[in-house]
Amino acid sequence: MQGLVQKALGGHIRSIARIITMVESESPYTEEIMKLIYPHTGNAHIIGITGSPGAGKSTLTDKLIDNFKQQGKNVGVIAVDPSSPFTGGAILADRIRMQRHSVDPNVYIRSMGTRGSLGGLAKSTYEAAMILDACGKDVIFIETVGVGQSEIDIVKIADSVCLILVPGMGDDIQIMKAGIMEIADVFVVNKADRDGFERVVAEVRIMLDLVKHGNWTPPVLTTVAEKAKGLPELTQSLMDHGKFLSESREGLDKKLKRITIEVEEILQREIARFTERTWKENCTPELLDSLLAKKTDPYTVAGKILEMVFVNN
Amino acid sequence: MQGLVQKALGGHIRSIARIITMVESESPYTEEIMKLIYPHTGNAHIIGITGSPGAGKSTLTDKLIDNFKQQGKNVGVIAVDPSSPFTGGAILADRIRMQRHSVDPNVYIRSMGTRGSLGGLAKSTYEAAMILDACGKDVIFIETVGVGQSEIDIVKIADSVCLILVPGMGDDIQIMKAGIMEIADVFVVNKADRDGFERVVAEVRIMLDLVKHGNWTPPVLTTVAEKAKGLPELTQSLMDHGKFLSESREGLDKKLKRITIEVEEILQREIARFTERTWKENCTPELLDSLLAKKTDPYTVAGKILEMVFVNN
Repeated sequence: MQGLVQKALGGHIRSIARIITMVESESPYTEEIMKLIYPHTGNAHIIGITGSPGAGKSTLTDKLIDNFKQQGKNVGVIAVDPSSPFTGGAILADRIRMQRHSVDPNVYIRSMGTRGSLGGLAKSTYEAAMILDACGKDVIFIETVGVGQSEIDIVKIADSVCLILVPGMGDDIQIMKAGIMEIADVFVVNKADRDGFERVVAEVRIMLDLVKHGNWTPPVLTTVAEKAKGLPELTQSLMDHGKFLSESREGLDKKLKRITIEVEEILQREIARFTERTWKENCTPELLDSLLAKKTDPYTVAGKILEMVFVNN
Repeated sequence: MQGLVQKALGGHIRSIARIITMVESESPYTEEIMKLIYPHTGNAHIIGITGSPGAGKSTLTDKLIDNFKQQGKNVGVIAVDPSSPFTGGAILADRIRMQRHSVDPNVYIRSMGTRGSLGGLAKSTYEAAMILDACGKDVIFIETVGVGQSEIDIVKIADSVCLILVPGMGDDIQIMKAGIMEIADVFVVNKADRDGFERVVAEVRIMLDLVKHGNWTPPVLTTVAEKAKGLPELTQSLMDHGKFLSESREGLDKKLKRITIEVEEILQREIARFTERTWKENCTPELLDSLLAKKTDPYTVAGKILEMVFVNN
């Protein structure tokens, strides 16, 4: 394992891909890999890209790759798809476009998706970002399909969160209300060649005035991703935010929070495994029958199992 | 607590509301409440209503309430909103319409939503359904906002799952592909006065032919919920499925699976609480500093905490 990780750390693309796959598939080597990876992390700027479906996240990420490459950056992309049964494969077309970068050795694009286990997906995404960081990527984009709380949790992994809005979606105000306002560091009104984009910009500004933020005031930018309009300004804003983090208490706090979450998620997963095993070992047909017959109840059963698991509860 | 639960079991609406709130807010009385509730459960038919946003789930549920009331049924509704930041309050308007039933003592409508904790939401929803079951509801609808895997997990709590599709959404086939096909017991093509509804019906039928199912062949029905068209047929289908479950191995298996999930979720939550406490107790500034300085890594830290928590790992 050490040899493979060494090759990945040296930038060998297939080795990077292999270790990400191992971590994603919860290989028993995950712990060993991550322990070798962690000491080399902390150099990359991780940027989360989120927004409603149809906001143009993939196209924008695609153009951002170009812009960051022009800045001499080595770029990684993690495209997160929690396999939502209602959005399904609809996003793939945009992402295929992004693949044109994949012949470039300085750009690494990776899709992540684990059906069912959202906690697991956040953990795998974080670890994939750590791997790309350790293996020499300067900028790592985490792009989510962008529906729901779970994706918000995933973009929280990022240093900088970029929220993409579009005119005419009607739900912009809804987005504001729902708490994403507090986590976005850069706002982008994409498709700004469409009617109503000024209204969206104005709405975001008004909402930003109402929300308390720290020493960083999130800028509100306009882009037309398909025509690459507004991209240099967006790239600059994102780099500015990265610089802000590296020099401020906020940046340190984000790092602390992230590493705390990582420890908690490892704990949760290990414990879940152990619990499942304990339950399986104790889940006899007789016990199930008495549950069905309501002679006992799930709380009583769980209580007995907990007594077996813990030293002192 | 026993007095309050007794009143709820007798059908006293405010007491029912109070104990659901206690369970939902993870009150320390949850276990005591649920232990008193479980022996009285097992009589209700729990029906999950799911589908894409805009499919008309709330309107359809609203009409189903009418139809089941006409059958002399005492009806409960649990409207699940995982507070998705991207769908936000958009659904509320439809749900407000449903509130017209709330003056009826034989209809109880309840919204559930816990930001962040999807596992917790599934557990609270299940327990609320159990409470309504024990307190005399004959039919309980669980309606989800309907985006993503998490909602699918929530509808799995139901005895019967009803999937609502609409013409012209374009994503119908996507839905099929994504695994919901296997869990739906009744398919409804709503807004069947719109162009293209026959195509959706045909597509569902074709997909159903390809999917293996047991002794129940899911019917594909058409409705125009706003005009109450097709509702008696849908009501009948749902009752037929309820009858099928009560007489078949499939019904027993569903019950077993559900009670197993319930035990697992209680275990998960209790263990998560205990872990969180242990982590908080051990999460010293020195430890965080050495994590930040990469002198140690999250896996090593988690490993040490696990050693403290478990008897033998």
